Amino acid sequence: MEPVVHQVRNKVFQTLHRIGLLSRRNHSVCAEHLHAPASSYTRQMKPTLTVSRLYQPSNLRDSRMQADLTCKSHRLMLQAGLIYPSNPGCYYYLPATVRSMEKLVRVIDQEMQQIGGQKLDMPSLCSADLWRTSERWDLMGKELFRLKDRHGVDYCLGPTHEETVTTLVAHQPTLSYRQLPLLLYQITRKFRDEPKPRFGLLRGREFYMKDMYSFDVSEEAAHETYESVCHAYTQVFARLGLRCIQVQADTGTIGGKLSHEFQLPTDIGEDRLLVCGSCSFSANVETMASDRSDCPQCKTGKLIESKGIEVGHTFYLGKKYSQVFNATFSNAQNKSSVSEMGCYGLGVTRILAAAIEVMSTDECIRWPGLLAPYQVCVLPPKKGSKADEATAVAEELLHTLGETLPHLRGEVVLDDRTQLTIGKRLKDATRLGYPYVIVVGQGALEDIPKFEVICQQTDETLFLPKDELLQLLAKLETI
Amino acid sequence: MEPVVHQVRNKVFQTLHRIGLLSRRNHSVCAEHLHAPASSYTRQMKPTLTVSRLYQPSNLRDSRMQADLTCKSHRLMLQAGLIYPSNPGCYYYLPATVRSMEKLVRVIDQEMQQIGGQKLDMPSLCSADLWRTSERWDLMGKELFRLKDRHGVDYCLGPTHEETVTTLVAHQPTLSYRQLPLLLYQITRKFRDEPKPRFGLLRGREFYMKDMYSFDVSEEAAHETYESVCHAYTQVFARLGLRCIQVQADTGTIGGKLSHEFQLPTDIGEDRLLVCGSCSFSANVETMASDRSDCPQCKTGKLIESKGIEVGHTFYLGKKYSQVFNATFSNAQNKSSVSEMGCYGLGVTRILAAAIEVMSTDECIRWPGLLAPYQVCVLPPKKGSKADEATAVAEELLHTLGETLPHLRGEVVLDDRTQLTIGKRLKDATRLGYPYVIVVGQGALEDIPKFEVICQQTDETLFLPKDELLQLLAKLETI
Repeated sequence: MEPVVHQVRNKVFQTLHRIGLLSRRNHSVCAEHLHAPASSYTRQMKPTLTVSRLYQPSNLRDSRMQADLTCKSHRLMLQAGLIYPSNPGCYYYLPATVRSMEKLVRVIDQEMQQIGGQKLDMPSLCSADLWRTSERWDLMGKELFRLKDRHGVDYCLGPTHEETVTTLVAHQPTLSYRQLPLLLYQITRKFRDEPKPRFGLLRGREFYMKDMYSFDVSEEAAHETYESVCHAYTQVFARLGLRCIQVQADTGTIGGKLSHEFQLPTDIGEDRLLVCGSCSFSANVETMASDRSDCPQCKTGKLIESKGIEVGHTFYLGKKYSQVFNATFSNAQNKSSVSEMGCYGLGVTRILAAAIEVMSTDECIRWPGLLAPYQVCVLPPKKGSKADEATAVAEELLHTLGETLPHLRGEVVLDDRTQLTIGKRLKDATRLGYPYVIVVGQGALEDIPKFEVICQQTDETLFLPKDELLQLLAKLETI
Repeated sequence: MEPVVHQVRNKVFQTLHRIGLLSRRNHSVCAEHLHAPASSYTRQMKPTLTVSRLYQPSNLRDSRMQADLTCKSHRLMLQAGLIYPSNPGCYYYLPATVRSMEKLVRVIDQEMQQIGGQKLDMPSLCSADLWRTSERWDLMGKELFRLKDRHGVDYCLGPTHEETVTTLVAHQPTLSYRQLPLLLYQITRKFRDEPKPRFGLLRGREFYMKDMYSFDVSEEAAHETYESVCHAYTQVFARLGLRCIQVQADTGTIGGKLSHEFQLPTDIGEDRLLVCGSCSFSANVETMASDRSDCPQCKTGKLIESKGIEVGHTFYLGKKYSQVFNATFSNAQNKSSVSEMGCYGLGVTRILAAAIEVMSTDECIRWPGLLAPYQVCVLPPKKGSKADEATAVAEELLHTLGETLPHLRGEVVLDDRTQLTIGKRLKDATRLGYPYVIVVGQGALEDIPKFEVICQQTDETLFLPKDELLQLLAKLETI
């Protein structure tokens, strides 16, 4: 067996070889004193991302692929290599989806931190004792995944963490009213043994959720916090360009005194909503008398029924959990007082799928601009075609983008499958929904080279010289 | 009940109230057409982070707190409010830990993507069928958390994902040799029912791990990939300033033909290593005859025993999993061929704790500079003290930092507990290990104000005017 020469990509690696710290024979290496310089990571360009190497496999073989494709986002996400089914209600999130989800997480982080939210991370294994204390161990029935550890102790996999977070806060004897409101949140994988997992990421058994919990000194303060979180949710959806309705809702197994859902109106939605035609009133049907058709708020408007996907839910809990777990704080009189709580969820993976559901056409994925996995796809000419010479122009463009537009680092993909026509590749790019597709064809060979720019968010096509193209892309918002 | 005036922080919110879209009475809001401008998020400063509001509760009450504090990092992380115990072997990661972990994840992402790694996310629930196919369902014994869903189907909680990822790749009939090497990785929570969870985050039952899986056309290519990943691991530890030894290791229940561990030498390490005094040879004791004391590589050196914490592990798997799950690709002759695989783990939460273990003193946490939760802590004078007037200088400094050093956004904390002396707060700051502590005291009232800068990574104290302080902080590397 002939040893293959390793493709050494990096000077440190070369140096290691030279000074013998990295020996091929025993793979031993000592990292001592090898502080990589800061600059090498901020300045270094990533290798060009090419379509031929992106792991976004389409048309995977699986008998389950054809079954229960009951909605558009499910079908489109499977076809485009964004997700792949594992167990019922469980999916592989493929690389493009992970990129999109990480962007969504950054948007949510910004908005939660803007209102004072602090991010923590709680265990998935939740002790049955805690859930028995809140009486939800029995209440949740079969929706809870349950297991025993090697010592026979009972646990569930947390679908939500009211018990867990309240226990944490209850263990701080020094918590002062000056530290409230306290807003703690996490963005983690949650588990729910759905009776009928379906609609892809819209109703799964494993999913990512942002769950926030608030602790306040009084009912008034808790209501302020509640409004502030609802506002932050509105901001999240506004930044994604999603039309979202906040409706009054039932409190369900979470409990509490007041609750709202954030609903994206769409026909495949599993929730039925009543929306007033005259004022801002909206409610989940569950909260209303079934025969009600006049608006309880403005009294004059008619209630119109529509369907929605629930993407967020807020609950004012009062003392339901804080009383049981004794989550107290020292008030201004230095007396122990029970906290007023709220809890607030955003379905992270569900928002992704719901956005694709409401924004896409039957054949083409459209993303909230901010969340597109890659912002730009560059299509060089077909190999051997008349425009073949423009290949060099495409390479130069990529180089310029890398040098002059740092906010697009990692956002630009080259469709290097030049054995295919531009037309065929353009069809793929349209289907996958890159916000900007740049075709480098005949126009790039003119005296002043022109690029064809397809802006998929607005359905415009522009023919721009390089400087104007750069100006356009400089304005592109990324996260 | 008097309605409390809501502290409106944001113009959009005010506007919403004004135009009636956000009604206090029904909490209903329509987010339609409320596209938040891009600039408001990139330019907007976050509210000042203050020590009094950071959720980093120290000295929480718990009987378990005093038990089994068998190592320094465990004790320090509990005392500093970085972690809090939940179930045995399960911890709350409190906000400072989450910040540090997110930075570590970014370092790992950069290095994995630098060698072509693509990030996905696989389900935690792994079907027993897959694990029976690989024969690990029985082999793993009690270390596997097992559960049944509502239909009685068996699952385990994935401690590692060889079966899961190989199944995914096996479902792509079109995979071509041109697309290899394929490197897929994830950074997710893993589960292992440890018989004796201990040492805080060093040996837990839930933990975050980066696991990468490689698919190659041949044994030679797989070895190249193996080396490239080992090199990336070396880079990760070098950037963190951690001395790490790569040692030959046993393949254990993962299996395969070749394996190395990345070990941080320290006395509380649970692994015993033999390191040659003369050459670069190092090995886990498990892989050597027990009475061996001479080096098998250079033949002359003596083997010295030391202890280490395993923070990474690499395996060359050959066809162990790809054969069983039929993960094939089309080779250059268009024939189906079985992939050569490797798998590679980094203990994310373990690296954090291990770094604190090896870098800290008995009383003071020290971080890898890049991973400190916050880079800078500013201490204004005590209220009512002689230096009280310098408070305005501290505020101005914070403002300047925010305006001129965007890379420090979110990295600067103000210790606003001005009822305490500077000395007392400095002791806390030293204990928590902010890389830079800036004391704004008497010196700030001189004609040319001077700031006392304690560089905790190098144990230097400097007295600098503002411009030199800004120059120093401008060089600070953040991620």
